[in-house]
Amino acid sequence: MIDDVLAKVDANLQASLERLFALLRIETISTDPAYAGEVRKGAEWLVADLKSMGFAASLRETPGHPIVVAHDETVKEGPHVLFYGHYDVQPVDPLELWKTPPFEPQIAKGADGSEQIVARGSADDKGQLMTFLEACRAWKAAGGLPVRVSIVLEGEEESGSDNLAAFLAANREELKADVALVCDTSMWNAETPAITVMLRGLVGEEVTVTAADRDLHSGLFGGAARNPIHVLVDALAGLHDEDGRVTLPGFYEGVPELPADVKKMWDAELGFSAEQFLGSVGLKEPAGEKGRTALEQIWSRPTCEVNGIIGGYTGAGFKTVIPAKASAKVSFRLVGDQDPAKVSAAFRAYMKGRMPADCTVEFTGHGGSGAIRLPFAGKELAAARAALTAEWGRGAVLIGGGGSIPVVGDFKRILGLDTLMIGFGLDDDRIHSPNEKYQLQSFVKGARSWARVLGALRG
Amino acid sequence: MIDDVLAKVDANLQASLERLFALLRIETISTDPAYAGEVRKGAEWLVADLKSMGFAASLRETPGHPIVVAHDETVKEGPHVLFYGHYDVQPVDPLELWKTPPFEPQIAKGADGSEQIVARGSADDKGQLMTFLEACRAWKAAGGLPVRVSIVLEGEEESGSDNLAAFLAANREELKADVALVCDTSMWNAETPAITVMLRGLVGEEVTVTAADRDLHSGLFGGAARNPIHVLVDALAGLHDEDGRVTLPGFYEGVPELPADVKKMWDAELGFSAEQFLGSVGLKEPAGEKGRTALEQIWSRPTCEVNGIIGGYTGAGFKTVIPAKASAKVSFRLVGDQDPAKVSAAFRAYMKGRMPADCTVEFTGHGGSGAIRLPFAGKELAAARAALTAEWGRGAVLIGGGGSIPVVGDFKRILGLDTLMIGFGLDDDRIHSPNEKYQLQSFVKGARSWARVLGALRG
Repeated sequence: MIDDVLAKVDANLQASLERLFALLRIETISTDPAYAGEVRKGAEWLVADLKSMGFAASLRETPGHPIVVAHDETVKEGPHVLFYGHYDVQPVDPLELWKTPPFEPQIAKGADGSEQIVARGSADDKGQLMTFLEACRAWKAAGGLPVRVSIVLEGEEESGSDNLAAFLAANREELKADVALVCDTSMWNAETPAITVMLRGLVGEEVTVTAADRDLHSGLFGGAARNPIHVLVDALAGLHDEDGRVTLPGFYEGVPELPADVKKMWDAELGFSAEQFLGSVGLKEPAGEKGRTALEQIWSRPTCEVNGIIGGYTGAGFKTVIPAKASAKVSFRLVGDQDPAKVSAAFRAYMKGRMPADCTVEFTGHGGSGAIRLPFAGKELAAARAALTAEWGRGAVLIGGGGSIPVVGDFKRILGLDTLMIGFGLDDDRIHSPNEKYQLQSFVKGARSWARVLGALRG
Repeated sequence: MIDDVLAKVDANLQASLERLFALLRIETISTDPAYAGEVRKGAEWLVADLKSMGFAASLRETPGHPIVVAHDETVKEGPHVLFYGHYDVQPVDPLELWKTPPFEPQIAKGADGSEQIVARGSADDKGQLMTFLEACRAWKAAGGLPVRVSIVLEGEEESGSDNLAAFLAANREELKADVALVCDTSMWNAETPAITVMLRGLVGEEVTVTAADRDLHSGLFGGAARNPIHVLVDALAGLHDEDGRVTLPGFYEGVPELPADVKKMWDAELGFSAEQFLGSVGLKEPAGEKGRTALEQIWSRPTCEVNGIIGGYTGAGFKTVIPAKASAKVSFRLVGDQDPAKVSAAFRAYMKGRMPADCTVEFTGHGGSGAIRLPFAGKELAAARAALTAEWGRGAVLIGGGGSIPVVGDFKRILGLDTLMIGFGLDDDRIHSPNEKYQLQSFVKGARSWARVLGALRG
């Protein structure tokens, strides 16, 4: 049976690529309101595609971008999976660094000769979510799905998932299942599949410091007038101590140490090279907390990063201005039981405490989600590992993930579901960067992997 | 004779305003290459205007924007003055804060009921330079100029005056005179004229820190990867100590203490209120060096200011990026004998010393000029004070200026000329800011003041 299904995946490669390219051409940038129409177009395309393979699919409105929900109604009993992916993408700036236009997908040759699908969203997450849809299509073409399948596709993952939790809560009954499947993570390397069992949470904060009520000439006022850029950079510089630790009071509450056996696997068994990992992007030495390995830093340690800063004159040439305002976007990656609300409150209290008398500070929250840790056992996890091992010819490893996938926390909290995070991205996919790509092999073997996982979950 | 000339100034007010408005409509933003054609148009307008009143005027090419030079050839002997102004202006961003378009000049009513000329460049420096041209026009209409007059009008003052010094050096013979006159400074207050006898110098530096060779996802790399925004803000935060002093080694070499009598005049006789000065722009407490008055800070103390900073994602929404680069524009105001080249070198050495192994730093210089101090005596100064006192009915005061006017240093160094800095701007003119204005009274009485100064300089 599974051989039949895999043969269908292989036979349909050309058509499945054409479908993926059609989806990649839609400019679904969720964080920028100017692209709202394109985001909706992406949702509509997915509804039509799911209907075309027999799902009961619908576009659901939210206060933000729509959510796509689909149910297979042909399988009436047995295990029930809820699949999640997101069809929105990151902004494309700086556009001038793209070798080909971000929304004109193409197959390009990588430096290693491999074939790559190049486009914004190819890896994060359109290419990944389509591996699951193509696996379903193959099963249906081969006679029918092996388990009950429901699907949720989000349009706001890259902009804070502001409306997903409320949507899950409002549709709790409809979305009940036995286990969730999420395809938004990476393989361990190009040959080794992985299941992600730890994910960091995320808090995003935008902060604006205001001093004078207008921009000032630094010749007339310089020296006597408060410069909000100075106030902001002083405060941001104070967020880390000399050992790279975050200075916010209570920040490390709920941060667990790794169990010894997991630390041993990461230190000695995965064959991870910090030099290679950093060297691949032109860096030499691990930053961050002293005494922590690079793998710990990206998987199991919390961070504070300034993701953007702007103030004063930033155009060509020079302008001797003391600006009225300066602002920054600051994010925190959370682990263990760190509380997003507490971290946000500690950051805001810290910034307020750094303001001189004539400065005011304002904040905009950009979402918060706690970290996830799955138990290292469970029958679905065992079934999925076996299926991945069969497809790739290598044992699937259990790893951590540095980025947050808030929906996994929401699934646990709202729907009571554990999530199998299985994805086929690679570390060099340049997600969120210019020239994002997804290996053609990830797409092909990803679809085959999901076909196997669905079969294995039937039990 | 002088009454005749002043009557001509008054009678020609409407026509002189129309000329000023025509000049203000030309978008002479020198720092942005996109406006090069407009800058040239400004120079051409001035050449035509000077020719129309009988000057031998010409547009002179430089490697950057053109310089306008004019000589009156009717007076053959007696004192010879060289007047300087600049016809370029600052950028207009943030445009949305302008109540009327920056290049559509209008007469508006101020909060105090006074009439104001509102436009970019109205005060800095088109309105000011036209006061001198209108004074010359009135003298010529009344029979002829009282002294020999040459004029230099620059188009790169707001972008570093990159080509002025070379031009002066190349035309040293042509530009010889007895004293220079510069109209680019302010009155002490709306009723009290001032002659500026100290000016701070300026060094501009643009610095860019580069870490990874691409933008990174903070989920994948956050913690282990160096964030160039952090490196930049840490370094910038370290430029000042807790007492507000600049930390660069050797920075205070050549910074003089004020003579006791000048300090007494500034502290006790000028009636300067720091609360009012800062309160006028929404600030409460003097920033800068501890133990220095606000007036010292802006006139006689050196500063280091971050005038612009940018890095990472700064658009709408949020992007969890660790950027490849971050950059800042940093300026230093210099006093006394501080050496611009040494300050620039100290800044660059400091930034280089703060770079971790995997960061590089690049610099772009944006010009440097030393500070100016004129002797508190001299017959031209005495003549000018008397003329200003006659026009305004109040003794003209001798003050410092916080902003640099590099040409004054160049006049001394290259042409051997001392400069009388006389201007009619006010502190609330919002120069370099949205809604820049020039009091109509400044324009009218400014022209009358120059008419009187020219007469007084005849001796």
